[in-house]
Amino acid sequence: MELLYTGKTKNVYRAEAYKVLLQFKDDVTGENGVFDPGANTVGLTIEGAGKSGLRMTKHFFELLNAKGIRTHYIRADVEQATMTVREAKVFGKGLEVICRYRAVGSFIRRYGAYCESGQPLDAFVEITIKDDERGDPTISADALHMLGILSPQEYDALTAQTKTICGIIKDELATKGLELYDIKLEFGRDAETGDIMLIDEISGGNMRVYKSGSYVAPLALEKAFLDENISH
Amino acid sequence: MELLYTGKTKNVYRAEAYKVLLQFKDDVTGENGVFDPGANTVGLTIEGAGKSGLRMTKHFFELLNAKGIRTHYIRADVEQATMTVREAKVFGKGLEVICRYRAVGSFIRRYGAYCESGQPLDAFVEITIKDDERGDPTISADALHMLGILSPQEYDALTAQTKTICGIIKDELATKGLELYDIKLEFGRDAETGDIMLIDEISGGNMRVYKSGSYVAPLALEKAFLDENISH
Repeated sequence: MELLYTGKTKNVYRAEAYKVLLQFKDDVTGENGVFDPGANTVGLTIEGAGKSGLRMTKHFFELLNAKGIRTHYIRADVEQATMTVREAKVFGKGLEVICRYRAVGSFIRRYGAYCESGQPLDAFVEITIKDDERGDPTISADALHMLGILSPQEYDALTAQTKTICGIIKDELATKGLELYDIKLEFGRDAETGDIMLIDEISGGNMRVYKSGSYVAPLALEKAFLDENISH
Repeated sequence: MELLYTGKTKNVYRAEAYKVLLQFKDDVTGENGVFDPGANTVGLTIEGAGKSGLRMTKHFFELLNAKGIRTHYIRADVEQATMTVREAKVFGKGLEVICRYRAVGSFIRRYGAYCESGQPLDAFVEITIKDDERGDPTISADALHMLGILSPQEYDALTAQTKTICGIIKDELATKGLELYDIKLEFGRDAETGDIMLIDEISGGNMRVYKSGSYVAPLALEKAFLDENISH
């Protein structure tokens, strides 16, 4: 298959018309050998990290598809660490849509003068542009419109879909006593139909999850969430 | 008079009920001995900088008041470098409302992947919170609402007023062949009536102005703008 793109944690291959294959790698983002989903550099390689992320991703995308949410997900092969998805065109050079239920991470670094660390937030949505060099800056609806990245209608649609999707993910995690603090999603337009759909992955690498007030790292999260699923 | 507050470039004294006196200082913000209106530290002292800023401020506030814009300005005494204003309560711990006509400064540092330096912008408004320690981060309408700083209605009112005010300032500068690239305003609520009004100063220290494509520094701007005003 033709390699279309080499990402930090995934390679992308052409599968067939309007479909691509994502190969999940064991490389994870982080710094100084510590796994940090918020980092922009590949920090280390953890054996099994690719399959672990894919198992979570498969679980959540199948859940979302079953609920009628438009996503790029078609099927996953966990043994091969591959996922077949509908081809997407991203908005601009790529956006991340963040939904926050608690004030942690960059939110508290920016607005710590007005809130306490860990304070509940009401599904607060903000968008950042994917730009490693410029530190993934946040961007407003007005700026997205003015720079030709998103129309106001598309902004409203993304924001509404994000709240719906993240609410489903939050509720699903809560069934295992896990609390979603924040999560980042990516959206794109279906290359064939132009419809807006959820793309990328949904795993510990895209979210901060806590259990009884303690942070649960991505690989531990997959075990805590999916192993228990299997045992019941 | 009672000293209420010592600012980086102004001292604030109690004048009478609901009125305060601003004493403009010759200290200007900057780094390494270079005047930089965007900087958060006092970089140097320039003799006459206080009066220069006040002359510009007086000119623009009198223009705005004459056009029916609600401002804190009552009167100025340039020789004493003082301005008497209506007392204000700021929003939260203080906000800056920025209006951009060209992509320069922090806008291009953040969104340079999507625009060229100096590219025209359509009176783009964004708000930052005054927080030196956290680098004056931008903040969205949703975040301002959620953190109890501005209601959506207040946000819309500030944005609309900013566009009106900055349009007046831009047109006024243009009469002298000067082009406004960007400007930051501050607003507050009148301590007596609660009405939203424009506060702080309006001078070269709050704006980037260019003439024939070259940046005009604050003190040169006052000369280019006001001396010509006097000579005509």
